[in-house]
Amino acid sequence: MFRTHTCGELRASHQSQSVTLAGWVQTVRKFGSITFVDLRDRYGITQLLFNESLNTELEKTPLGREFVLQVAGEVAERSNKNLQLPTGDIEILVQSFTILNASATPPFTIQDDTDGGDDLRMKYRYLDLRRTAVRKNLELRYAVNRAARNYLHQQEFLDIETPFLIKSTPEGARDFVVPSRMNPGQFYALPQSPQTFKQLLMVSGYDRYYQIVKCFRDEDLRADRQPEFTQIDCEMAFVEQEDILQMFEGLIKSIFKEVKGIEYTESVQRMTWEEAMWTYGNDKPDIRFGMQLLNLKKPESVYRDRTDARALIDGADFKVFDEAESVIALAVPGAAEYTRKQTDELTDWVKRPQIGMKGLVFIKCLADGTFKSSVDKFYSEERLKSIASACGAQPGDLILIVAGPEERTRKAASELRLEMGERLGLRKKDEFKLLWVLDFPLFEYDEDGNRWVARHHPFTAPKPLQIATMIENEPSITDASKYLDHPYAQIKANAYDMVLNGNEIGGGSIRIYQRELQEKMFAALGMDKEEQQHKFGFLLGAFEYGAPPHGGIAFGFDRLCSILGGSESIRDFIAFPKNNAGRDVMLDAPATIDDKQFDELQIRLDLKS
Amino acid sequence: MFRTHTCGELRASHQSQSVTLAGWVQTVRKFGSITFVDLRDRYGITQLLFNESLNTELEKTPLGREFVLQVAGEVAERSNKNLQLPTGDIEILVQSFTILNASATPPFTIQDDTDGGDDLRMKYRYLDLRRTAVRKNLELRYAVNRAARNYLHQQEFLDIETPFLIKSTPEGARDFVVPSRMNPGQFYALPQSPQTFKQLLMVSGYDRYYQIVKCFRDEDLRADRQPEFTQIDCEMAFVEQEDILQMFEGLIKSIFKEVKGIEYTESVQRMTWEEAMWTYGNDKPDIRFGMQLLNLKKPESVYRDRTDARALIDGADFKVFDEAESVIALAVPGAAEYTRKQTDELTDWVKRPQIGMKGLVFIKCLADGTFKSSVDKFYSEERLKSIASACGAQPGDLILIVAGPEERTRKAASELRLEMGERLGLRKKDEFKLLWVLDFPLFEYDEDGNRWVARHHPFTAPKPLQIATMIENEPSITDASKYLDHPYAQIKANAYDMVLNGNEIGGGSIRIYQRELQEKMFAALGMDKEEQQHKFGFLLGAFEYGAPPHGGIAFGFDRLCSILGGSESIRDFIAFPKNNAGRDVMLDAPATIDDKQFDELQIRLDLKS
Repeated sequence: MFRTHTCGELRASHQSQSVTLAGWVQTVRKFGSITFVDLRDRYGITQLLFNESLNTELEKTPLGREFVLQVAGEVAERSNKNLQLPTGDIEILVQSFTILNASATPPFTIQDDTDGGDDLRMKYRYLDLRRTAVRKNLELRYAVNRAARNYLHQQEFLDIETPFLIKSTPEGARDFVVPSRMNPGQFYALPQSPQTFKQLLMVSGYDRYYQIVKCFRDEDLRADRQPEFTQIDCEMAFVEQEDILQMFEGLIKSIFKEVKGIEYTESVQRMTWEEAMWTYGNDKPDIRFGMQLLNLKKPESVYRDRTDARALIDGADFKVFDEAESVIALAVPGAAEYTRKQTDELTDWVKRPQIGMKGLVFIKCLADGTFKSSVDKFYSEERLKSIASACGAQPGDLILIVAGPEERTRKAASELRLEMGERLGLRKKDEFKLLWVLDFPLFEYDEDGNRWVARHHPFTAPKPLQIATMIENEPSITDASKYLDHPYAQIKANAYDMVLNGNEIGGGSIRIYQRELQEKMFAALGMDKEEQQHKFGFLLGAFEYGAPPHGGIAFGFDRLCSILGGSESIRDFIAFPKNNAGRDVMLDAPATIDDKQFDELQIRLDLKS
Repeated sequence: MFRTHTCGELRASHQSQSVTLAGWVQTVRKFGSITFVDLRDRYGITQLLFNESLNTELEKTPLGREFVLQVAGEVAERSNKNLQLPTGDIEILVQSFTILNASATPPFTIQDDTDGGDDLRMKYRYLDLRRTAVRKNLELRYAVNRAARNYLHQQEFLDIETPFLIKSTPEGARDFVVPSRMNPGQFYALPQSPQTFKQLLMVSGYDRYYQIVKCFRDEDLRADRQPEFTQIDCEMAFVEQEDILQMFEGLIKSIFKEVKGIEYTESVQRMTWEEAMWTYGNDKPDIRFGMQLLNLKKPESVYRDRTDARALIDGADFKVFDEAESVIALAVPGAAEYTRKQTDELTDWVKRPQIGMKGLVFIKCLADGTFKSSVDKFYSEERLKSIASACGAQPGDLILIVAGPEERTRKAASELRLEMGERLGLRKKDEFKLLWVLDFPLFEYDEDGNRWVARHHPFTAPKPLQIATMIENEPSITDASKYLDHPYAQIKANAYDMVLNGNEIGGGSIRIYQRELQEKMFAALGMDKEEQQHKFGFLLGAFEYGAPPHGGIAFGFDRLCSILGGSESIRDFIAFPKNNAGRDVMLDAPATIDDKQFDELQIRLDLKS
């Protein structure tokens, strides 16, 4: 070893010991004829003192930032203790030193608040990774990994590796494919998830499976998506939904405890998908704060069992509301005193193309119990009072109302709620609120193909009582305009998402395990028998040989880590991430390949431009 | 849950409890009006007893092998206890049952000794995985995984994920490549190992890194190779070779203990590469048994510091030896009584094309101290005695001698030694002998290109004292016939292999961390500056910003598991392996892809045939 101790290890109790340290030069400070150096490694920082005689040597070979240095010396108590540092009680009186490697001046400072821009830091990722802030993120990631493995081990899960070179069965997302040299003209695909393999492992009797595993999706990268990402992937046999919910809130609570020291003792709150959409406009609501939506008006075709509050706004001859498909309100606490400038700014905010509303209606609930609104012309004080009351608004609150087509308006209301929560400081980084969202629709309607698509994936089972509905009805949609009347539109999935602070961190389902039902599902998605056999023959085959009831879940590991680390960006929690164009800027990959490689793979380019 | 207990859990102490079990029907045995069923899951087998009244029901819906069954009943003590089974004291008096899923008759029996051939079992891998023998292999694999992680965690290693979509830099093996849709005309490569990334992590100060990670090589598959395989990949900063040897024999000993209950307390034996080649003909000798080689003759050009024993055979006018480049002997204990038939068979064995010898010379060391040989005409009793003595042969032993070109003969002697060890039962599956092989040559000579290739990989450092030799000499070889005289031929790598029972289970090296030396290495391998910059510019760049001394190792996880499991085949330890043509027979992958995929990737086929 090049050292006897790390740079984070020495304390006053080591006084007078002879030690050897190795690490990076963080700072060099000269005071007359002596020099102080802060030496850094993963474990900490230790102060070195070079005396007069060594200083002469130092002048011959000056130390720069990020030089790799080895020193031998004696541990001494500092006169000037640094209480900020665990090693702050001591310093090393250097007796000899060796420069193990020099360093050019880094293109940005290796500090928490670096002066490096994003591109520069990506190109020199190996330097960016030196910053304490980034290192702490990767250490947290490892702690989450370790905590998850320990919990799953205790619960008798087995880590079983599934293959990376599999078959392309493009359903939702695009596959990355890999040309096979040994099988010319054929391709492997990289897995979008180990879904079918973990199901086969249940068929094989492995009972409890997990893996922390890379998955791949060739999608156009929205902000903060990566073409390769990591899942905590789990599956259990002989379970019902309730068993999965219990097991995996246990997992997340265990991670909270091990990694963050948080005792999350209460049961995780549960909400149906419909409740979430109705009350928060969103299937992954952030429940750290209230501001629930008041549905003043909704179209008949959706949320059929829900009643809107249209009596509160009807008959006022206010065209904006009368002509809108949906009208949704929410009460922002304590915002009644917003100035005209502030409300104008909010109006501009909802008019941005990302939100797409035509305007915003305000009702200020003044402290004296009176109301002031942008629709005073249409609504009496009494009617405003009724709306405020239905919203749960208190004096001092500001009611915001959006109106327009159902889908867009609901999304806008949800975004507005989140934005106001953010502005009011209600989305605290150090508060963690879990939520199970349940009872998703099994199918979504695909307008282009006038057919069903699986909301989750084609292996998700319907609720047990709805299996008959699915088997007994034909999936074809005769009248596209009335697709919501089709029995399939009412089938709920036996599926669940785990939501943390408004982010979906995990999702899963009880799976189909009967061949007949699986075939019906494939047929509903527009797959004929031949295609079913080509793509999923192995799975249909497996279901013939004693497949047990089973279900599972997968957690987005990158996202989970970033939320626990209090960051918006998953890239900060990935050692070598790619940029939005799917490039590794440091490697300069992807790149061209040699003619020999094309030749061996028996493919060639067919560039369009 | 579909069960209250697993099929491996119930004991006499559970007597009279009401329980629910779920699992697979292993056997059905009818005795008059009652039926016994063995119900199986991952945890064990439990006997079920269906009484007369249930029997009527059973007749309506007969149970077959591999049906998935749920039963409720009461635990009862058996009159006829089965001492072979942990649950053998009890049986379940079934009160009600549900067939959760039926099963077609499996194409082979789900038993340890199955009647299924290799191809059939691969196609129905999900059924093969049900066999206890296969399940135990995957459980052992998980135990090794767990033990490795625990040890490395204790030693402060961090599991840090490295990317799978990287840049193609084909050096030794071929890369699998992945066309990039977002960057048309460009390709990612799948990593052959995370080598450069783990080195960058050392440059970034992570100090101790590990990963249990998939790697990919597009090679023609020899028996028992897989295109995707798993490594325990490790790297440490501020270390010398000795630190690595200590750390990682600790790892393997810890795995032995946790997984096999073996206390491997002695230090792992060490041997130089030259010693291994000289004494065993092999760089990964199986040291569970002796039978060391006697080098009777070797060419001058190799093993220059070694002396052969040619005096023992010279001057006898025996052309086979006189004309051979190399002559190597070994003494097989207790085989002097081999019959003519047996020695003929051995001669045939060495003449097989895989071995390639022209013949085999025998000396029988008879029990009475006399000798009988196939070369009596050329060698006197006294000379035979000298050879026997130099071989360490005892009365009763059989000396075998091969002669021919150096490389082929040494390999033949090694193969012969292993074969005889096998025949004599000296290679015991339950005996584990570790060995470090050290001081490999840094370079190998490539005849075709008349240049050097890296024996390990281009990042391996030479021995510290030979760095100067490498820097100060030009790599070019002027006279191909005298390449062994080039100073580079004598440079030893600061590298090490760990060998277990004659298998290389791990290998690594101290790395180059100085830009100048790395550039020299690349140049020695025939890479010009431009190519160096294109392929490894990021690494050369990293070495300019304070790279610490570092080194590491990677273990072949599949192989390690198979040896610990006492199997010859790594496939038995992989859940979903590929066959020798790189195909997943169950998935039927690789396969063709859609026109849409070609179109999006902007590539097309260019088939030769």
